[in-house]
Amino acid sequence: RHQGVVARGIEAITRKGLLGYLKTIECPLVLILDGLNDPANIGSCIRSAAAAGADCAVIPKNHGCGLTATVVRVAAGGATMIPIFEESNWGPLLAGIRKLGLWLIGLDENSKLDLYAVDLAVPIALVIGSEDKGLRQLTRKRCDQLVKIPAGGSIKSLNAGTASGVALFEACRQRRT
Amino acid sequence: RHQGVVARGIEAITRKGLLGYLKTIECPLVLILDGLNDPANIGSCIRSAAAAGADCAVIPKNHGCGLTATVVRVAAGGATMIPIFEESNWGPLLAGIRKLGLWLIGLDENSKLDLYAVDLAVPIALVIGSEDKGLRQLTRKRCDQLVKIPAGGSIKSLNAGTASGVALFEACRQRRT
Repeated sequence: RHQGVVARGIEAITRKGLLGYLKTIECPLVLILDGLNDPANIGSCIRSAAAAGADCAVIPKNHGCGLTATVVRVAAGGATMIPIFEESNWGPLLAGIRKLGLWLIGLDENSKLDLYAVDLAVPIALVIGSEDKGLRQLTRKRCDQLVKIPAGGSIKSLNAGTASGVALFEACRQRRT
Repeated sequence: RHQGVVARGIEAITRKGLLGYLKTIECPLVLILDGLNDPANIGSCIRSAAAAGADCAVIPKNHGCGLTATVVRVAAGGATMIPIFEESNWGPLLAGIRKLGLWLIGLDENSKLDLYAVDLAVPIALVIGSEDKGLRQLTRKRCDQLVKIPAGGSIKSLNAGTASGVALFEACRQRRT
């Protein structure tokens, strides 16, 4: 029922059944990867999620590269530290996540709302898109809020793994205070 | 007087004279890369520094790969957005930075002090080491404070670019509030 990938002797597996898993978590912090195709970026995002202590990461079953050996290698151990769910039927999935009481917060550099203005201490799923195209249109519509990481500098878009890290660690900071 | 590197048609240059430059900045936010050898990591750190709006990044002249085409490519435009200083004589340089009133804050995953417990709204230079070895011994000794990014998860060490991003964006957050 799962797909195993071995990289550098580490076997990482993907799971199914995200919604059932989320029911067992008190105040979930989830990272959803939407439309990312670059294995290094996906691995980098999973590494950030594991370091921040996210409860799981979610990758799409049909629109993405899956959990390849490169993903596992770049994740630097992260892919075995937290559950990686590989899910299809994104629409019902996102609806199901919201029904469980999680806020769907999409990262979008064109949003006017700052990440830091949003309460991240509640149950949330952060949704991140690809570096070039951002979130997919339907995913964007299903988010409760779209937020940007306010860039002080002249380049707007962060590396996907770094953007994930900045957002997840801000959620952790808010949850501690 | 400078070294130019062209990647994807973008020419990036390194400068000298960090201390003179810092005298012109009101409340500097600087990223110092200490002992990083991997061009992708260096590029990723520079990208984070540019996105966060750091005033400059500093790379060592003799202990590192320099501003190679890979660094410039991975920095995704960041290497032309902020000044990159390439400096030798690390010891006098760090002493000079402190003399100008900046706090030297080293990232060290073994520190007991949290990044979030430190005032980052003052003039600071964040110092980051390589992913495998961390800060070099002499650099570590010259830092005013060593801080860790408190990892919620089981893997301690973040990607260098992500760690830079998390620390720099936290400094930006504190400076806004």
